[in-house]
Amino acid sequence: MGEVRIISINQNVTADNDLAADMLRRRLSAQGTFFVNVMSGPGSGKTTLLTALINRLKSDYRIGEMDVDIESRIDAQRVADATGVEALQIHNCGLCHIDADMITRALTEYDTSELDLLILENIGNLVCPAEFDTGAHKNVMLLSVPEGDDKPLKYPLMFTVSDLVLITKTDTTGYFDFDFDAAKKRILALNPKAVIIPVSAKTGEGLDAVTDWFRSGISSINTDKH
Amino acid sequence: MGEVRIISINQNVTADNDLAADMLRRRLSAQGTFFVNVMSGPGSGKTTLLTALINRLKSDYRIGEMDVDIESRIDAQRVADATGVEALQIHNCGLCHIDADMITRALTEYDTSELDLLILENIGNLVCPAEFDTGAHKNVMLLSVPEGDDKPLKYPLMFTVSDLVLITKTDTTGYFDFDFDAAKKRILALNPKAVIIPVSAKTGEGLDAVTDWFRSGISSINTDKH
Repeated sequence: MGEVRIISINQNVTADNDLAADMLRRRLSAQGTFFVNVMSGPGSGKTTLLTALINRLKSDYRIGEMDVDIESRIDAQRVADATGVEALQIHNCGLCHIDADMITRALTEYDTSELDLLILENIGNLVCPAEFDTGAHKNVMLLSVPEGDDKPLKYPLMFTVSDLVLITKTDTTGYFDFDFDAAKKRILALNPKAVIIPVSAKTGEGLDAVTDWFRSGISSINTDKH
Repeated sequence: MGEVRIISINQNVTADNDLAADMLRRRLSAQGTFFVNVMSGPGSGKTTLLTALINRLKSDYRIGEMDVDIESRIDAQRVADATGVEALQIHNCGLCHIDADMITRALTEYDTSELDLLILENIGNLVCPAEFDTGAHKNVMLLSVPEGDDKPLKYPLMFTVSDLVLITKTDTTGYFDFDFDAAKKRILALNPKAVIIPVSAKTGEGLDAVTDWFRSGISSINTDKH
């Protein structure tokens, strides 16, 4: 057996972002818009899942989507084409995250006042986006089966800050070693209140439960409003 | 068809890291140690591939490995157990990247003077690590088939700075839509000198070619030395 030693290198990450996030959240609550921040690593299936979800909700609600990417417009275009909703592509020019101030600036060019649901498809990154409050009411994260059940151990903050954890691409389970019980235990150890739903955009597994979670969130904000 | 608009939000990322990186690289060259920085998104198969690679090289070379992670020691322990080489776990305490200064500090506790090959297994992130020169002689990145062939469009800098691009988990090709020709074209458009090798740690595809690439790199540094 080889030897392992551990070295910790500290650096403070300051954030005066929380005030901007609270202001944005209050503003969206007041106008009755449920704002959800969707995070994951690259290639976990965010765009495919969100497209399926929006198509299930769009007859009942007014929905908007913002896609953050370094420089492409692939995701916003895919969502817009597949659902017909207006999608805003935000380029963050190489940054690893997006914060509430950036969202607030983007919303000066995107009228959300009539929306029931505003979805932020965050950049594919399991580290940095977890550190910044975007002003969303709820955080959702996707962990795909091919990524492996050890990810909660390696990216703990992402799982700690997420209200809903979707284990995606469950149709590939036969192909990868993924221990669902171990993954759930690891997630709940970090975040006992996390809702965990296994889903597959291919087979439709879990999509009803995810849709219900979104409906419930939209209702809670609309109730607050009136 | 829905509408897509694009907003760019700028922020300068300054880096006085380049001097530290050059100093570290020169020092390692002088002692005859080939230093390779291995990057990828989460769950692309870095640890599995590096373990297979080290086991093919360790009878001929003295090898060391550093694993960067937010707080776990899983990867370093896996490499150490599976190969017998000394592995150093670096905790970067929630940061999204590691830079040459952090590596230089870590190496004050890790004697590399006798090593022929030093491997850095960077944190799983396709964005931030690409922005920081670690002092490595070469950058290697892994793109797994499950992540999708569009990743060069979405994370261009990572592909631009990588000398060797490994397309991993090729054994899962039947399960995912992955267009190898499209991926290669996209990578070469960003980085015409990139060496691209499809690999599978399960079937062994490509491992000979990857091993040869490392042998060639080690030789080039040892030749420089004498």
